Amino acid sequence: MSAERERDPAAATGGEGDRAALEQRAVNTIRFLAADAVEQAKSGHPGLPMGMADVAFVLWTRFLRYQPQDPAWPDRDRFVLSAGHGSMLLYAMLHLSGYDLPMDELMRFRQLGSKTPGHPEHGLTPGVETTTGPLGQGFGNGVGMALAAKMIAARVGDGFAPASFRVFGIVSDGDLMEGVASEAASLAGHWGLGNLVYVYDDNHITIEGDTALAFGEDVAMRFAAYGWHVEHANPYDREALAAAITRAVDEAARPSLVIVRSHIAYGAPKKQDTAGAHGEPLGAEELAAAKRALGWPPSPSFLVPPEVRELFAARALALRPGYDAWRSGIEAWRARAPEDHARWQSLIEKRVPADVLEQLVARAPQGAAATRAHGQAVLQVAAALAPSLAGGSADLEPSTKTWIKESPAIARGQFGGRNFHFGIREHGMGAILNGLALAEGFIPYGSSFLVFTDYARPAIRLSALMRQQVIWVFTHDSVFLGEDGPTHEPIEHLTTLRAIPNLLVVRPADGVETAGAWGVALERREGPTLIVLTRQSLPALDRSATFEPSWLRRGGYVLRETPARGAVTLIATGSEVALALDAARRLEAGGLATRVVSMPAPQRFFEQEAAWREAVLPPGGFRVSIEAGATLYWRHVVGERGLAIGIDRFGESAPLAQIQEHFGFTPDRVAARVREWAGR
Amino acid sequence: MSAERERDPAAATGGEGDRAALEQRAVNTIRFLAADAVEQAKSGHPGLPMGMADVAFVLWTRFLRYQPQDPAWPDRDRFVLSAGHGSMLLYAMLHLSGYDLPMDELMRFRQLGSKTPGHPEHGLTPGVETTTGPLGQGFGNGVGMALAAKMIAARVGDGFAPASFRVFGIVSDGDLMEGVASEAASLAGHWGLGNLVYVYDDNHITIEGDTALAFGEDVAMRFAAYGWHVEHANPYDREALAAAITRAVDEAARPSLVIVRSHIAYGAPKKQDTAGAHGEPLGAEELAAAKRALGWPPSPSFLVPPEVRELFAARALALRPGYDAWRSGIEAWRARAPEDHARWQSLIEKRVPADVLEQLVARAPQGAAATRAHGQAVLQVAAALAPSLAGGSADLEPSTKTWIKESPAIARGQFGGRNFHFGIREHGMGAILNGLALAEGFIPYGSSFLVFTDYARPAIRLSALMRQQVIWVFTHDSVFLGEDGPTHEPIEHLTTLRAIPNLLVVRPADGVETAGAWGVALERREGPTLIVLTRQSLPALDRSATFEPSWLRRGGYVLRETPARGAVTLIATGSEVALALDAARRLEAGGLATRVVSMPAPQRFFEQEAAWREAVLPPGGFRVSIEAGATLYWRHVVGERGLAIGIDRFGESAPLAQIQEHFGFTPDRVAARVREWAGR
Repeated sequence: MSAERERDPAAATGGEGDRAALEQRAVNTIRFLAADAVEQAKSGHPGLPMGMADVAFVLWTRFLRYQPQDPAWPDRDRFVLSAGHGSMLLYAMLHLSGYDLPMDELMRFRQLGSKTPGHPEHGLTPGVETTTGPLGQGFGNGVGMALAAKMIAARVGDGFAPASFRVFGIVSDGDLMEGVASEAASLAGHWGLGNLVYVYDDNHITIEGDTALAFGEDVAMRFAAYGWHVEHANPYDREALAAAITRAVDEAARPSLVIVRSHIAYGAPKKQDTAGAHGEPLGAEELAAAKRALGWPPSPSFLVPPEVRELFAARALALRPGYDAWRSGIEAWRARAPEDHARWQSLIEKRVPADVLEQLVARAPQGAAATRAHGQAVLQVAAALAPSLAGGSADLEPSTKTWIKESPAIARGQFGGRNFHFGIREHGMGAILNGLALAEGFIPYGSSFLVFTDYARPAIRLSALMRQQVIWVFTHDSVFLGEDGPTHEPIEHLTTLRAIPNLLVVRPADGVETAGAWGVALERREGPTLIVLTRQSLPALDRSATFEPSWLRRGGYVLRETPARGAVTLIATGSEVALALDAARRLEAGGLATRVVSMPAPQRFFEQEAAWREAVLPPGGFRVSIEAGATLYWRHVVGERGLAIGIDRFGESAPLAQIQEHFGFTPDRVAARVREWAGR
Repeated sequence: MSAERERDPAAATGGEGDRAALEQRAVNTIRFLAADAVEQAKSGHPGLPMGMADVAFVLWTRFLRYQPQDPAWPDRDRFVLSAGHGSMLLYAMLHLSGYDLPMDELMRFRQLGSKTPGHPEHGLTPGVETTTGPLGQGFGNGVGMALAAKMIAARVGDGFAPASFRVFGIVSDGDLMEGVASEAASLAGHWGLGNLVYVYDDNHITIEGDTALAFGEDVAMRFAAYGWHVEHANPYDREALAAAITRAVDEAARPSLVIVRSHIAYGAPKKQDTAGAHGEPLGAEELAAAKRALGWPPSPSFLVPPEVRELFAARALALRPGYDAWRSGIEAWRARAPEDHARWQSLIEKRVPADVLEQLVARAPQGAAATRAHGQAVLQVAAALAPSLAGGSADLEPSTKTWIKESPAIARGQFGGRNFHFGIREHGMGAILNGLALAEGFIPYGSSFLVFTDYARPAIRLSALMRQQVIWVFTHDSVFLGEDGPTHEPIEHLTTLRAIPNLLVVRPADGVETAGAWGVALERREGPTLIVLTRQSLPALDRSATFEPSWLRRGGYVLRETPARGAVTLIATGSEVALALDAARRLEAGGLATRVVSMPAPQRFFEQEAAWREAVLPPGGFRVSIEAGATLYWRHVVGERGLAIGIDRFGESAPLAQIQEHFGFTPDRVAARVREWAGR
């Protein structure tokens, strides 16, 4: 498409023509703010912002309801830039729309400590609803946000609708190729999320060239198959585009995909429609030529004409009454229906009792059972204490035991429940959980088998990077799941999950520790917690009279004391704690004084003050770690003189007892290894 | 559907009726071999084999070309049970078809050391083409296998077709929900793989209940959108089923999905069509009732009527002439077109010169450059030396630099090339690479950014579990990629990849080491190698006159000697080796004798004999590790007195120099930390 026809928008006459000309200047402002920032940073992605400036403009000035002075307004419409590499498009929109993102920050695009990093980061930049860049994730996050709106609406009665927000987004071919988006799209269609509208930037260009190289599918048909409403529009005909988006917004029963045949780096004479415009600056010459082609002043850079500022200021002003009405509506509602309001308030605050850990431990399940079964019992109590808690499983609930019994499942038109059927879609589940957490109102949890954390890993990492309170529950946590064999048996997973910054991994050993794990997870607002549970039954542990539930916040504590300093300390997690106790009894019978430390959350333990750490693990003592998985994490814990008992090879398919014997995880075998090692 | 009509198949009359009755007995033999084995193991999945016994029977006795005495026959049709939990269906078929899988093994289903583990494992059981269980993977593997057939055919001229094999498979709703299958399906349609036929076991049941709980999409429409040919058939009407599969086989331009509305645990009076039949034994009573319902003798278990044995023996016999013709065809072809034959032979053997590492190092790129750029140069030489090498990128080739320049790209109808455009589909790429490796003929490689190993992790793990020679090339290997910021910056990834058993991670420091990395990867037949490369330029390293290329097989070696024993040893990988050298010079100038060890592959290093290890890392010395990522891997290497310099938090978006300064990865900062630590 030639950019020629827009060269002199002022040629249009009359009021409508004036408006069109002004809008065109606004669109070019967005376009060149992005291109200038990339040029100045000598790094970034000019193509998407230049191609999609019109779409962003139409979305933000005709559809999105926002309030720049209150970016956390619960009922704001959400905008998700799933194609996060187009970050300058979002920064330009936020700046122009009046968010606290001054021009200085745009000029510091991609510099250390700026609020304008290479990809948008939630929590860093006001108005950035989610951290995007890894493709497909934002797509799934938006599905979670749209779901949250439906779920809040279903929880607060008819008196007032505090969450009528919609979710708008821009998605790229890369987003649509990624499997995580396929999974989330199928669920969005299944649930009929009519409050979700994505515009697909169909620019026919990927990094390697034309999308025809690898993307021959019929996207419209595929999304229709998922149950989506599909529209097509020319993104450079703003009226036609707005009409298509209006139809999408009006479609209440289905999510919508508006496919726009766009042109990457729109307006750049040589680079438009080329892969070269995707991920590097246009270059001074081409940038100048693009400005000429679109009738834009060659300088200064970062130009925002006053009338464009006024346009956006007018938009913010126009949105103000709606915001004010919502605020006063809330107050009236609080007076009229205090219980409904209070329910909503507790959701929005994700309220959890300050002593949730103590309450859960006080009601901890007793007796011998698999920790997944304990988890089921604890979850019921947790759900009663934390109304924001809602979650589900990637089609393994009968195994992971993560159903909230007092509540139905979420389904199309039925959003009052607290349970999800995610289907066999771990990754989509993860991206949706992140979206639920981001949308406010929910502490989401999701479950599967521990080995399948691999399927959801990019989403788990983003929970941690975004510091979102997502609770991950993974069962079948070792080779002791038995017969399903090596494809289902985690080996390296505990280690590799503990290696993700800001992800807290907790592997409880019995009912009390399972209660503690949920307590820790519900208390922890600043990031995700991953609870790891067994398939097989474990005995209840005896604890000393001095045991305090607060020890469970410490990540590790002395379970069985031995008076002799310098003796052997067995450190174990989860199912290996009872094994360590049995081995300790054998060792003591043989005259080797042995302390047993239960360490459900070693990351947390090593954050404790020295006094706690040294009381539990006396310096200079001999240490043995016992965990049915990779030893890598434990080697530095036990030190050079220590012994790390674990499994550093793939598993086997066999019944539990055979597996325990095969891998040497029996009290006799463990005691023998410790004895042999101590005797050296 | 009632099983009633099949109760007395002998009631049918005449030759056709006899045949139908016999086939029905064969189908029930399969059904109850599976159910009996699950019952005996007290563990497993009876539902799929019982529901899909007819489909397996029709595929194996009317379509599949195999030779049980030669399970590695290169031109055999491949059968992929993507829904690996139905493993007993596959074991029953292999046993009945004459593979070396005796009845003893069926009776030891899911026992330690048996050839019948819980999920099918390639390499353990003859005739198992791929390891399945993690859903969606087999789907992608089959796409890779079908691709391999096309690629071999395109490489050997018109004289003979040594790879006319087709790929058949059974896929479940779980497979189709997983994003990895969506990615692979889109590519299979894009490439027009007409030699691929999947039967979709549409049984309407998942673990959590009816598929309608989470899977409302129109699967047929979705696959049509991917460019697939779609058929529907009743799986219990064998003639209609065979007709549908015939149409699928005859469709040469598109892959086919044959959707069969099946019934899980077909024939079990109470459990048919229930989630309860998915993953646990029927129970003695229900099993007996199922046998009664289908007119099957209640005992003995594991019954194979002699006439059913004969049926399968006759099938093997009928397939023999085709196999013999292929064998003699190969010989005639060898005589007629020795060069074509030799080309094929070298492909099938995945031939690599014994001294490939030495050859690559001898021609290693010199000078300063990013190791990704060195990789591009090395790849060209490697491609000339190893004709089986073929690979591509998940739409990042301009960045990962993994194009084989002398060769075109693979595209629909054009399978002679050695380069793939995988699109933005890391996970689908991984599953397809595994399939290419399994199909014989290719040493596949795939590339993306290191942080996106997370997207492909389940496939990477399966390369390792299956001991397949897949080469993974991941660039942009640290925070030093700079401006793209924390979503794109790997932190924990080197550690978490090294934790996967049998995956060798190599992070070279310059052109010579990059050549060595490719050499190691091409030599290593017993598993995958993951080569990790930089975005940023690195200097070429000076090596002593005594340096030998074979040192690069050792995983780590002394780069810069220091005479003083007990002095500080700096251990570094990749981009940090040059940094370590710079820091060492500063330390020596200050009087601290410092050795520098380059350790591109620490896993390999720690497998070396003690003499090598101790020569490189003298016991008792002070050690410092330097790697721009998580320190977890290095803590036990440096030991309690050592210092691990790394990055244990998320990255930042900034230009390279700012990032280096911010994280303390400059010669001065490193030297200062070592000095401070050594002074303690």
